[in-house]
Amino acid sequence: MSQKVIIGVMGPGTSATQRDLELASELGQLIAESGWVLLTGGRNQGVMEAASRGAKAAGGLTIGILPGSDRSGVSEFVDVAIVTDLGHARNNVNVLSSDAIVVCGMGLGTASEVALALKQGKRVILLGCDLETQKFWQKLSSLVLIAETPPEAMQKMQNLLSRLLN
Amino acid sequence: MSQKVIIGVMGPGTSATQRDLELASELGQLIAESGWVLLTGGRNQGVMEAASRGAKAAGGLTIGILPGSDRSGVSEFVDVAIVTDLGHARNNVNVLSSDAIVVCGMGLGTASEVALALKQGKRVILLGCDLETQKFWQKLSSLVLIAETPPEAMQKMQNLLSRLLN
Amino acid sequence: MSQKVIIGVMGPGTSATQRDLELASELGQLIAESGWVLLTGGRNQGVMEAASRGAKAAGGLTIGILPGSDRSGVSEFVDVAIVTDLGHARNNVNVLSSDAIVVCGMGLGTASEVALALKQGKRVILLGCDLETQKFWQKLSSLVLIAETPPEAMQKMQNLLSRLLN
Amino acid sequence: MSQKVIIGVMGPGTSATQRDLELASELGQLIAESGWVLLTGGRNQGVMEAASRGAKAAGGLTIGILPGSDRSGVSEFVDVAIVTDLGHARNNVNVLSSDAIVVCGMGLGTASEVALALKQGKRVILLGCDLETQKFWQKLSSLVLIAETPPEAMQKMQNLLSRLLN
Repeated sequence: MSQKVIIGVMGPGTSATQRDLELASELGQLIAESGWVLLTGGRNQGVMEAASRGAKAAGGLTIGILPGSDRSGVSEFVDVAIVTDLGHARNNVNVLSSDAIVVCGMGLGTASEVALALKQGKRVILLGCDLETQKFWQKLSSLVLIAETPPEAMQKMQNLLSRLLN
Repeated sequence: MSQKVIIGVMGPGTSATQRDLELASELGQLIAESGWVLLTGGRNQGVMEAASRGAKAAGGLTIGILPGSDRSGVSEFVDVAIVTDLGHARNNVNVLSSDAIVVCGMGLGTASEVALALKQGKRVILLGCDLETQKFWQKLSSLVLIAETPPEAMQKMQNLLSRLLN
Repeated sequence: MSQKVIIGVMGPGTSATQRDLELASELGQLIAESGWVLLTGGRNQGVMEAASRGAKAAGGLTIGILPGSDRSGVSEFVDVAIVTDLGHARNNVNVLSSDAIVVCGMGLGTASEVALALKQGKRVILLGCDLETQKFWQKLSSLVLIAETPPEAMQKMQNLLSRLLN
Repeated sequence: MSQKVIIGVMGPGTSATQRDLELASELGQLIAESGWVLLTGGRNQGVMEAASRGAKAAGGLTIGILPGSDRSGVSEFVDVAIVTDLGHARNNVNVLSSDAIVVCGMGLGTASEVALALKQGKRVILLGCDLETQKFWQKLSSLVLIAETPPEAMQKMQNLLSRLLN
């Protein structure tokens, strides 16, 4: 089997905070250094772009799942652009294609991804989210994990994946 | 123009509480009495079925947007079954097709619908949701409305629609 | 069960011929007179609009499955507009939602619908298509039926539906 | 820009002929040798699998766009599995994500991909298809190219891509 491990990193676009971006970039780098493929929403904005930039800096492979009908708006740090023309329904492709999902920051698009992921049995790691956000999702699902730093998120993903793959 | 007003009613399936079901059923009835079309996720469960039952009792027209590749699992109270084969991505069709959305109860599928609706500029009325849920969504969007009873939800929808249509 | 029979009528948009439009309009009328629901791609063009106009003239119920993210471009003869934001992938929703499909004329969008319908076991009636088109599809599937006039298409649908419903 | 060129290879699954498979495998190899990414429908069958096997034998990168809600049925020669849960509507993702499309053999799923591709302005190379099939598609679109051998298809793709990228 040549199949690769895919980690989805999701979070706000234009409304991402500086901290969201820093977490995403460091996480992208760590994912690439682990030999995993990074998957994002593919656009040249916010957490998507920051994570892809981090992964490319470490020589990783980056996949971007785009919402439109062509590659317009794709991040320059995406290697393989998947063009869905699904609009926001592409968020479901993001989560289904990922072995595990890490969220940096919370917006409405991200909330839809967390909900769709948890609904379909995917683990979601909330990285650097506030307490209210953590509580909301933990009340709805037992598949939510919390991390404060990218290395802690990586550690939790390693544990998850070793269980998934064994 | 023969185009009809469509109201989406969403909420948990098998995990719906008795109160969620009662609110949904009364709401479905009021929607039908107003001459509006009811749209739900179409399945024979929970809030979807309760709302459709209420609307049919009042002689309304009911649309069900199904996730699978055929009509299996459709509620007997759905007149027009739309078969999407989109899985949970059909939630985006639910919200985009509705002029306004009312939510009775909160689960993961419902959370994805609320997020997708608000992200795309649709008003969402939270009916009978707890304070924590109200706060979570209101923090993310100014398009959230709160109602405690079906008649109050109807009043808010009337206001919304008169603005949308004028 | 309040579930209605849904007949999909598909064909070219702006490239429809005068004959395609006449066939679609007559067919829409006959479908409505039979008490069936008409489903089309919903836009204000070509075969979609002609069929919807015919159905409304006979007092029928019309459903339009739109490709975009709102109701722009919807035909004025559509009662219930389903907004998918799926682009051309909405063609799969058209065929899956229909109990039987009639095609008036052939273009690329229509060809995708015929292929998707036959692939998923749906019967397709080719109405007024040229011999080359008939042969191409009949070579690929045994589910293709041929009709020269709308009444003949109606007769074939009656036969199909009586088998499906019994 | 780290964005890679993506070539889609499509064709029948279980109904593929021995010749379809040989063409697909050789083509997959030539695509990989050119440094392009191969995209297929991702399953462990027919033209999808043959093309992926050929590309992996030459050390290429292979993407598979799966129809289901998980990776079941994925080819062992797929590196990156994109899980869409779109059923046959994933065919639209296949064509939109590809810079150019080559078809080996013709079935109903493949016909839907050719139609969707041409409808949306994508070039399609028919490789080793019979004359009737060639004529049907050429009558509907001027974007159809014909090739008899994989090297001829590669030559036509090179020409197309040099125009697209300049």
